[in-house]
Amino acid sequence: MPRARSAGEILADAACTVDPALRQAARHLAPPIRRLTDYHLGWTDAQGRPATLTGKALRPALVLLACQAVGGRAAQALPAAVAAELVHNASLLHDDVIDNDQLRRHRPTVQALFGTSAAILAGDALFFLAVQTLAQAPAPLCGTGLQWLTAAVQELIDGEYADTTLEQRTEPASLSEAAAMAAAKTGSLIAVSCALGALAGGADARRTAHLRQFGAHLGQCFQLADDILGIWGDPAVTGKPRLADLQARKKSLPVAAALSAANEPARELAALYATSGPLSSDELERAAHLIKAAGGRDWAVGQSRHHLAQALENLHAAHPEQVAEADLTTLARLAADRTH
Amino acid sequence: MPRARSAGEILADAACTVDPALRQAARHLAPPIRRLTDYHLGWTDAQGRPATLTGKALRPALVLLACQAVGGRAAQALPAAVAAELVHNASLLHDDVIDNDQLRRHRPTVQALFGTSAAILAGDALFFLAVQTLAQAPAPLCGTGLQWLTAAVQELIDGEYADTTLEQRTEPASLSEAAAMAAAKTGSLIAVSCALGALAGGADARRTAHLRQFGAHLGQCFQLADDILGIWGDPAVTGKPRLADLQARKKSLPVAAALSAANEPARELAALYATSGPLSSDELERAAHLIKAAGGRDWAVGQSRHHLAQALENLHAAHPEQVAEADLTTLARLAADRTH
Repeated sequence: MPRARSAGEILADAACTVDPALRQAARHLAPPIRRLTDYHLGWTDAQGRPATLTGKALRPALVLLACQAVGGRAAQALPAAVAAELVHNASLLHDDVIDNDQLRRHRPTVQALFGTSAAILAGDALFFLAVQTLAQAPAPLCGTGLQWLTAAVQELIDGEYADTTLEQRTEPASLSEAAAMAAAKTGSLIAVSCALGALAGGADARRTAHLRQFGAHLGQCFQLADDILGIWGDPAVTGKPRLADLQARKKSLPVAAALSAANEPARELAALYATSGPLSSDELERAAHLIKAAGGRDWAVGQSRHHLAQALENLHAAHPEQVAEADLTTLARLAADRTH
Repeated sequence: MPRARSAGEILADAACTVDPALRQAARHLAPPIRRLTDYHLGWTDAQGRPATLTGKALRPALVLLACQAVGGRAAQALPAAVAAELVHNASLLHDDVIDNDQLRRHRPTVQALFGTSAAILAGDALFFLAVQTLAQAPAPLCGTGLQWLTAAVQELIDGEYADTTLEQRTEPASLSEAAAMAAAKTGSLIAVSCALGALAGGADARRTAHLRQFGAHLGQCFQLADDILGIWGDPAVTGKPRLADLQARKKSLPVAAALSAANEPARELAALYATSGPLSSDELERAAHLIKAAGGRDWAVGQSRHHLAQALENLHAAHPEQVAEADLTTLARLAADRTH
């Protein structure tokens, strides 16, 4: 039996597979817009010179592996892998405008470098490039696949919007609202990535549903990790500033869990979140401490363990091919392990 | 022979036909996002109470009439009419963010009322609803039709982006650059509306191409009118503030024409456009006067007459059914007549 691959090897392999197809798709964009999307995708630097900064390729890896898990060849799922990566990047472009984020992957965001209009239009272009990629793929990707992807994007948009409205609300968000928001914002695209892979590989409805559930739970692990790293992560590793979520009074999962606790740190945190105007760096550190003291961090780590177990149970129920199962298990553990 | 219908009757009829299908499509959106899109579409007021403000329905009218022009029934083209209107409204939502516009159709824009994030996400939702509408339509709309529409949207995005970059440039845009920008920004969606109608009606490639060209020229008339009304129109009629385009130093078609003239008003206009910071209301009125004195307004009116003639020539070459031809001619004249 071959040695199990590391998460890094799996993601690098997926990036290598999907990169030429992604670049091929991007050639359909007009040069002015492409200058923005090439930069965003890490292919060029701010001056337009070639660069080789690639994203994590988690969604393409899931598409390709889900296809192989049901006995398909990775090539069958390639258009879906490209489309999922394009949608993900389009949503990041709009997200950075919405959150006014200045840094992503250790570099200025498109909106920081080229302005808000550029980031909105580059996002629109990548969204439509994703649609074009699937619309031109063979059946069933061009039909059922496109319908699944567009439905997932609508969920993603709902989740993004819930995120922005929750942060404006003064009363605490319920934990279930925050979890539903995370499921829609992050889980929907990761879940549909797995479903599209299974669809491309010719899986029946039952196996496809299990792989979609696998993705949904993995997505929850991923969002929990993102939320935890946003509070306690090292910016040198994450490439994003720490505590920006708290500054925006986001009701991320650990925060929502902390606020829902009936203890003194929860009450102090609620009072801090209820103030208006920017929080000082001392107040931000205090908030991070209070979230932990109120039990928000432990809750998030526990939730991540729960979703990892659910993900692996669904993976098993999909009766996956052995090699793909090992890789998908590794990716699920990676998503969960980032949190502890 | 029946009395020819007025443009108002034609547009009202198209709005009545497309409205139930548009509302049916909107039901697929989640309530929080729908609150935004219902307001934008004129179905509710700022408090969410029912309202009956409808848009011009120009694009749906063109889709339905192009279908009838080639012998099809309007019902065959309905999903394309809905998709074209959704794309148009999605692009308006993003446009208002990009231009920081506060008023549209005599009411505050979504971004003015609900914020930038809401307007970006509502636009994303309508873009994808358009894709979903066509993806679920019968062939050939779900295949070829979707590919045409998505290609037109990419052109529209290119045109929008050219618009924002042209206004930031200090050297004058060439007239051909400004015309290409207008063709992409406004012409592409109007042209594809006609092409989709013809496609739904079962037209051959030649008739479809002529109807697409008809739409492209009508789109140029429409953009010329928009540019002229933005400088010399009555806000009580247009529903938008006057001179906002000049304040943003937009290189709209009359401005680009004026700047390319070799006369004294052109030089004074160029100097005014080259200043930084907001223009006073006296300076804005002076700019409007200079554009006219440099010949920008006459040029735009002449161009509109030229594109109207080209539109009608292409319409004729498509051998349209008589009633639809009369209506399409009326709409082309409406688009052109708004300018003089």
